[in-house]
Amino acid sequence: MTKTDPGNFFEDFHLGQTLVHATPRTVTAGDVALYTALHGPRFALFSSDAFAQNCGLPGAPLDPLLVFHVVFGKSVPDISLNAVANLGYAEGRFLAPVYPGDTLAATSEVIGLKENSNGKTGVVYVRTTGTNQRGEAVLSYVRWVMVRKNDLSAQVEQTVPELKPAVDASDLVVPRGLDFSAYDHALAGSPYVFEDYAVGERIDHVDGMAVEEAEHAMATRLYQNTAKVHFNQFERAKDPSGRRLVYGGVIISTAKALSFNGLQNAGLILGVNAGRHVNPYFAGATVFAWSQVLDKADLGVCGALRLRLVATKDRICEDFPDKDDAGAYPADVILDFDYWAAVPKR
Amino acid sequence: MTKTDPGNFFEDFHLGQTLVHATPRTVTAGDVALYTALHGPRFALFSSDAFAQNCGLPGAPLDPLLVFHVVFGKSVPDISLNAVANLGYAEGRFLAPVYPGDTLAATSEVIGLKENSNGKTGVVYVRTTGTNQRGEAVLSYVRWVMVRKNDLSAQVEQTVPELKPAVDASDLVVPRGLDFSAYDHALAGSPYVFEDYAVGERIDHVDGMAVEEAEHAMATRLYQNTAKVHFNQFERAKDPSGRRLVYGGVIISTAKALSFNGLQNAGLILGVNAGRHVNPYFAGATVFAWSQVLDKADLGVCGALRLRLVATKDRICEDFPDKDDAGAYPADVILDFDYWAAVPKR
Amino acid sequence: MTKTDPGNFFEDFHLGQTLVHATPRTVTAGDVALYTALHGPRFALFSSDAFAQNCGLPGAPLDPLLVFHVVFGKSVPDISLNAVANLGYAEGRFLAPVYPGDTLAATSEVIGLKENSNGKTGVVYVRTTGTNQRGEAVLSYVRWVMVRKNDLSAQVEQTVPELKPAVDASDLVVPRGLDFSAYDHALAGSPYVFEDYAVGERIDHVDGMAVEEAEHAMATRLYQNTAKVHFNQFERAKDPSGRRLVYGGVIISTAKALSFNGLQNAGLILGVNAGRHVNPYFAGATVFAWSQVLDKADLGVCGALRLRLVATKDRICEDFPDKDDAGAYPADVILDFDYWAAVPKR
Repeated sequence: MTKTDPGNFFEDFHLGQTLVHATPRTVTAGDVALYTALHGPRFALFSSDAFAQNCGLPGAPLDPLLVFHVVFGKSVPDISLNAVANLGYAEGRFLAPVYPGDTLAATSEVIGLKENSNGKTGVVYVRTTGTNQRGEAVLSYVRWVMVRKNDLSAQVEQTVPELKPAVDASDLVVPRGLDFSAYDHALAGSPYVFEDYAVGERIDHVDGMAVEEAEHAMATRLYQNTAKVHFNQFERAKDPSGRRLVYGGVIISTAKALSFNGLQNAGLILGVNAGRHVNPYFAGATVFAWSQVLDKADLGVCGALRLRLVATKDRICEDFPDKDDAGAYPADVILDFDYWAAVPKR
Repeated sequence: MTKTDPGNFFEDFHLGQTLVHATPRTVTAGDVALYTALHGPRFALFSSDAFAQNCGLPGAPLDPLLVFHVVFGKSVPDISLNAVANLGYAEGRFLAPVYPGDTLAATSEVIGLKENSNGKTGVVYVRTTGTNQRGEAVLSYVRWVMVRKNDLSAQVEQTVPELKPAVDASDLVVPRGLDFSAYDHALAGSPYVFEDYAVGERIDHVDGMAVEEAEHAMATRLYQNTAKVHFNQFERAKDPSGRRLVYGGVIISTAKALSFNGLQNAGLILGVNAGRHVNPYFAGATVFAWSQVLDKADLGVCGALRLRLVATKDRICEDFPDKDDAGAYPADVILDFDYWAAVPKR
Repeated sequence: MTKTDPGNFFEDFHLGQTLVHATPRTVTAGDVALYTALHGPRFALFSSDAFAQNCGLPGAPLDPLLVFHVVFGKSVPDISLNAVANLGYAEGRFLAPVYPGDTLAATSEVIGLKENSNGKTGVVYVRTTGTNQRGEAVLSYVRWVMVRKNDLSAQVEQTVPELKPAVDASDLVVPRGLDFSAYDHALAGSPYVFEDYAVGERIDHVDGMAVEEAEHAMATRLYQNTAKVHFNQFERAKDPSGRRLVYGGVIISTAKALSFNGLQNAGLILGVNAGRHVNPYFAGATVFAWSQVLDKADLGVCGALRLRLVATKDRICEDFPDKDDAGAYPADVILDFDYWAAVPKR
């Protein structure tokens, strides 16, 4: 059955290799509506053409997380079909806004390979780039995954890339034309601006959102992400959980939507510093979230907040559930996501 | 945690106050497709650009109920986040058709306040207006909700507005350009026109439709309605029902879609006279509906039927389940909705 | 309650009768996004405007199966509301591509009637034609259904039409302008072309996809298909299964999406030779699929593969589950679908 794609195993990758991912995707107003229906965002900049035009853009761009999921989905068949685990993200930058009608494609470059001591798996590091129909890069990020070896005797050249712990604020790219000088705080839902947020400040987003099987499966199909763990219930029934795993991106988008309550003006993600899905989430549980301001930077036309977004399942966040001093997370914490967002200044 | 919106309590409202609601929303073909997928409408006027153009419009407008839900959703964080109950609607009028690409925003004026004798809650009456990107009003309606007091000692100036029991037919606004003279009854699915419906006539719509958790949650997120009872399963588990409540608008839209079978030419709602969600609905039950013609009015270019739409759960409507002489509803009746719809004349 | 549509019974049809189906439908980018979210297709031609333009088309056309479902849905209230069973399809041809913004309508001609010996039911054969807003036929197919008689004493003129076992390759219509000479195999996801597929070859598509109640119901409402068995849980509770039946088209589209893994370049269906839903499918089971190449034809600008698509529930397809020599299917085979698809040549 050679016509069926078996995916790549650890030894199929080599340093410097470029993979052109299949299925380019024209994103449309249909995707935007589904993103709203599936995750519940309310950030005005992505919801209203009129609001976005008032911010100097030609219309409402896609939520950067929607762009991320579409680009990420393309990479799955080539990078992580035989993955044991997604280990992390780093150095993510949104390089140009994406509008309905744009066509996204993706390529990945292998930048690191490190076999595990068990000789059965290895870690693959790739830098994935999403481009639009004009060939412009719209997104770039690094991710690393643990991938099975098929031929246990195979040897590969190994290296572990040096990754920045966070994107430098000076490397963040503000969408061309963005101008918050006439920002409408009433329509945006909050008066708080760059100056109002303090490094170290924590915000409980209060609201909770349950995610159903149909919802995460629809989202993950929309992103054309083909990882079997999200869809193949017959195979998942053999797992101790007996359940399909929910794509981590669904949790990121759900938690980000919940963060509106307290971060109404920080919808526009400019960079992704790190992200870990620290415990699995299964459909039916209610997602809660809290945020912490890690850093601030003045980008001229706007401010940037470096935010940590922590999500839980079936646990409210008034006490800010967090990892302990040894870095271990409670079982009901499911996400620790570190990103930069643009915010208006006073 | 002052950056998190606590919502308004009874004493936070004052007569004459205007609230500008957050998150303007550009409605698109994506919303229209989701509305079809979630509720199942088949009225030709909203389904086909060609049909709508044959009726004198530039293209298919949005179903007025979709417009209603989007506008209503915006008002929730400001008006009903701390609501105990939605008590009613009145004086609803659709003032201009909405097309894909239009951006909706909403404001509400407080027109009545009445503290309850228990001193713990009060009724807030607001007139909510939805506008498009040109500032034109597209929808206006009154609703009243019972809201908790936070400071039980607070005193507010009180008044109860006089509301019309029904919108006067002469106040209904027919979409500019509407012309039913070349109405295609074969494509619309029914030969019946204004003259064929008699005041008092009742119609069993026969068909039944179950609504799943994922479906009502997706609809309610699409409308950016944030009421916690629809989403927060963790908190709802403490309720005697143990279930998320389904947004009443989901029932209105489902029942209206079912009413196609018998009211195929009465899709275009012009006014909302009253509406009550008389019993809760939980996902999984099958919705049925029947209608009664309450009144008729000749609007010149078209007729108008005043219709009462009654919906039930897990009960067929061949015997027209209804309130008793004391006004009490059977436990399986969930909606009593009173509206005006345009219909072609002979 | 004469205003409620009772549907047609066997004796209501007559040979040569033309039925104009209700509710024309403008299909949009919203429908395309929902089709992706609900069924998971990844064929580049329908996913990317840029890819389609590179294949000589003005933009990405709708997946022919989406067109089929929308046209089929229109015919349900007139043809199969009182159907006992859908018996088969034949002579299906896609005659022109459909693009977002096009408006679909449908008519059916009665081409055969055959009363069953029990005198209580009969088989109705119709040729259904889908047209666009310019009146051009975009799809034509024959289906036959077993329909109840209402008046058991009624007599109708009977005839059984002669139907082709498969569409002749010479009758297939390739979309005007289609040009695979610059086909991008990396973006399409597979190097395999017409010459690489051999008659008799079988392909296990490996992947599995569960379908939830909310997903099939949303799809079927999107297609405005009103068959009660898909929606009315209250009535279905009386059936031995106790479950809503999933619309067979959902299975066709799910299986076709799964077939991407092995048939990445055969997305464009040109003809439907036959189709049978050989066992019922209820939500929750995981769909798997395999394909067999039945025939090949060189159409000049492209090749055509005649493919048999077999779907199962909760059974992997590595051993190609199939009917036995007597034509009986295992209980876990749910679909046997025979179609022509365009593929690039070398």
